[in-house]
Amino acid sequence: MVNGIERPLDVLNNSKGKEVLVYLRGGKQFVGTLLAFDIHINLVLDNTKEMHDNEMKRSLGVTFIRGTEVLFISPASTALKDE
Amino acid sequence: MVNGIERPLDVLNNSKGKEVLVYLRGGKQFVGTLLAFDIHINLVLDNTKEMHDNEMKRSLGVTFIRGTEVLFISPASTALKDE
Amino acid sequence: MVNGIERPLDVLNNSKGKEVLVYLRGGKQFVGTLLAFDIHINLVLDNTKEMHDNEMKRSLGVTFIRGTEVLFISPASTALKDE
Amino acid sequence: MVNGIERPLDVLNNSKGKEVLVYLRGGKQFVGTLLAFDIHINLVLDNTKEMHDNEMKRSLGVTFIRGTEVLFISPASTALKDE
Amino acid sequence: MVNGIERPLDVLNNSKGKEVLVYLRGGKQFVGTLLAFDIHINLVLDNTKEMHDNEMKRSLGVTFIRGTEVLFISPASTALKDE
Amino acid sequence: MVNGIERPLDVLNNSKGKEVLVYLRGGKQFVGTLLAFDIHINLVLDNTKEMHDNEMKRSLGVTFIRGTEVLFISPASTALKDE
Amino acid sequence: MVNGIERPLDVLNNSKGKEVLVYLRGGKQFVGTLLAFDIHINLVLDNTKEMHDNEMKRSLGVTFIRGTEVLFISPASTALKDE
Repeated sequence: MVNGIERPLDVLNNSKGKEVLVYLRGGKQFVGTLLAFDIHINLVLDNTKEMHDNEMKRSLGVTFIRGTEVLFISPASTALKDE
Repeated sequence: MVNGIERPLDVLNNSKGKEVLVYLRGGKQFVGTLLAFDIHINLVLDNTKEMHDNEMKRSLGVTFIRGTEVLFISPASTALKDE
Repeated sequence: MVNGIERPLDVLNNSKGKEVLVYLRGGKQFVGTLLAFDIHINLVLDNTKEMHDNEMKRSLGVTFIRGTEVLFISPASTALKDE
Repeated sequence: MVNGIERPLDVLNNSKGKEVLVYLRGGKQFVGTLLAFDIHINLVLDNTKEMHDNEMKRSLGVTFIRGTEVLFISPASTALKDE
Repeated sequence: MVNGIERPLDVLNNSKGKEVLVYLRGGKQFVGTLLAFDIHINLVLDNTKEMHDNEMKRSLGVTFIRGTEVLFISPASTALKDE
Repeated sequence: MVNGIERPLDVLNNSKGKEVLVYLRGGKQFVGTLLAFDIHINLVLDNTKEMHDNEMKRSLGVTFIRGTEVLFISPASTALKDE
Repeated sequence: MVNGIERPLDVLNNSKGKEVLVYLRGGKQFVGTLLAFDIHINLVLDNTKEMHDNEMKRSLGVTFIRGTEVLFISPASTALKDE
């Protein structure tokens, strides 16, 4: 299930091409397909949607997110189900 | 569609010469044509417009934006359509 | 009981595979099984639950948490008992 | 018009000797002639005026501004016209 | 009394195995036995108690505290006496 | 008038022995004679006065100010005249 | 009077063994005898007293203060006289 996660960035590598929830420091939440990341946790999401109370607030397309603002990253399938 | 994005900065490189929405930490939003960026995500936009509720608040011309203040960067065409 | 803790990261190493409480700067609390960490205190938790007043707020699955947001990490068994 | 801007700092180099608007993180705005800058975006302005609602609040003379506080820098001619 | 303190970290070294009060940036206070620290002031406390108005709020067990959140560290015997 | 300012720190070097206004991030203002500075913009002022609304709030003597808190530094003669 | 201050840290070196006022970012003030400091401005004070409105709030003993929280450091004799 969570095989092969030796270092934290492994989980981001496993998430490439999958839909993730990205939660930022100020409380913003984005859902999108993870296209790329780097060691600073800078991210690029495709089909990015800014979320508010589990509803889409606006569609943002291919979006660059600066890593130092990221609080946590979860699989969208799990994170959006139970909120 | 999003070919050739291996690293997060690739999406900024692809956005050069295109109109982007830049969202800063304190909530400020700018729209302008991306002229240049560096690894600190310092940006230069041309024809920069400071936005407020999808309306132009003021025109700023060629503007340098410090990277550590950037939260996310999206294509202006998508980001401004659905807000 | 706490043998073999020479450096702070040793306690994280001892916690691998165990359930921990992770408290973030903005007040968010997560409980989950520690899968991985690095020297920046970036963490991956499995079966992550976001907590609010000792109750589960939402289930997040395998979650990456950025280290610079972490305030403290405790064993979940102790931390959730007495709150 | 914006020729020769390869990197973000090029626009600061082009602005030397010209009047710029400097907007800081806490909301302070300064107008002055850009005398010098470095890679940390530390700035020196001449004839610096602290602005409030497009009016001069106080005159500060030759002022050193610490780069980590800078949010954006624009040409004063454009930025002050439309506010 | 305070012999042998040449550098600030010496006082942490002298405090190993003793009960300390750790005060964090957001106002949280912990009391526990100092097990380990590093140059980033990351700490591990044993028998950690989160304090509120000199009363124990909850017991946290062996706790990792991230150094960048630490404001000050004092001997618990002195700090809790006069508050 | 402002000859010889090639880099931002040159203006601090020119200000040594002169009275400066130092404005900090949280809004505190100090006036004093600049004795020393380093590349982190750590400062030492002599005859330091903490100011509030152009009035002296308290006298602090020879004061060390940590650079990362500094917002801007101006000549006291200009800055205090027009406020 | 202030001879021999070439660099900002010289004033801290001159203050060793003397009573200083340490003012932190969040507004906390400490008075104590400076025992040690390092280049990060980490400090150790002896006989540390947390102050509030020029009155002692609590006695903290030998206290480690993390440098990144320090705003300014003044001689206690001057700073406490005129407040």
